[in-house]
Amino acid sequence: MRFSPLVEQLMEAFRVLPGVGPKTAQRMAMHLLERDRDGGQRLSEVLQVALKEVGYCGRCRTLTEEPVCALCQSPRRDDSLLCIVESPADQLAIEEAGGYLGRYFVLHGHLSPLDGIGPEDIGLDQLEARVAEGGIHEVVLATNPTVEGEATAHYIAAQLGDYGVAMSRLAYGVPMGGELEYVDGGTLSRAFNGRLAFRSE
Amino acid sequence: MRFSPLVEQLMEAFRVLPGVGPKTAQRMAMHLLERDRDGGQRLSEVLQVALKEVGYCGRCRTLTEEPVCALCQSPRRDDSLLCIVESPADQLAIEEAGGYLGRYFVLHGHLSPLDGIGPEDIGLDQLEARVAEGGIHEVVLATNPTVEGEATAHYIAAQLGDYGVAMSRLAYGVPMGGELEYVDGGTLSRAFNGRLAFRSE
Ligand SMILES: [Zn+2]
Ligand SMILES: [Zn+2]
Repeated sequence: MRFSPLVEQLMEAFRVLPGVGPKTAQRMAMHLLERDRDGGQRLSEVLQVALKEVGYCGRCRTLTEEPVCALCQSPRRDDSLLCIVESPADQLAIEEAGGYLGRYFVLHGHLSPLDGIGPEDIGLDQLEARVAEGGIHEVVLATNPTVEGEATAHYIAAQLGDYGVAMSRLAYGVPMGGELEYVDGGTLSRAFNGRLAFRSE
Repeated sequence: MRFSPLVEQLMEAFRVLPGVGPKTAQRMAMHLLERDRDGGQRLSEVLQVALKEVGYCGRCRTLTEEPVCALCQSPRRDDSLLCIVESPADQLAIEEAGGYLGRYFVLHGHLSPLDGIGPEDIGLDQLEARVAEGGIHEVVLATNPTVEGEATAHYIAAQLGDYGVAMSRLAYGVPMGGELEYVDGGTLSRAFNGRLAFRSE
């Protein structure tokens, strides 16, 4: 005996979620069926609506149910700065860190020729068109500090090279509050090379 | 800025799942919206159908979309044995352990007067009616070895006391493969009291 076919299907369906194995999927299915049917109903409905309505912002490609997202519509952001990120989650992390007041462009991934992911799949044609409009003075290449993120940043820098905009990349270095002992060698070496004059006052 | 309202609602909806905090809910929402919309669609649909169709077996109260579950319908199970468990997950664990060939009755919880959960809420009227039908020789009280599970077992034993059926409880003891050092004192003491004659042959 296993559970009934529908209960088994529900457990299987939960396994699409990241980090959810058979035991966790069983616990989720049991929890909703046994103890929180209203919550399960709401999850089912919100998921359905979100999958139908949430698409990409026509201007920055972040996830939104509007044609153009709230941040792109905001009159308070600086149009001369454009920050390029791999995902909406990266964009949120930068927003939550605070301090950046420009606009964004979201790639939803990075270049990955082996997986057949080329420039158009990450919106680079749309990005180039936006820079070609003029008005952008600096592009911040905030792709991840991984091999693929670096390669994508280099590709974009080359692609936008003719438009006369400044390019920058997030600083690499020792994380705040981290102990040097536990920082990996590559990061430490980058932090050394990018060392800054120290002023005690 | 946070995410768009619908994306925020989706993240919030995932928090009904056990063990899912804000960060995990965000990762789940992003994963489905960014990388697996088909899987998300299927989850939404299966969840909807399961919540609508899955109820309690009319005979044993386990979760099933049929009026009577497959195990209750099976002609191969022993009608004279009835095992009482707190949840379908406990029932599955016993089935997977193998060896038990009787029928089940599922309480979906335990008595909990402080939470207003009384005998009828866990189906004890239905259980008594079933035992009153006759044909059951032994009831195995497989509620959890917790204070509430024990209390529920005692209540059921008293309730069914007049029907002349044998009552049993799962043996307490040291888990197989466990090291004594890590077994809690209550279990160890129970295992000592229930010690068996050892035959070396
Ligand atoms: Zn936007
Ligand atoms: Zn049944």
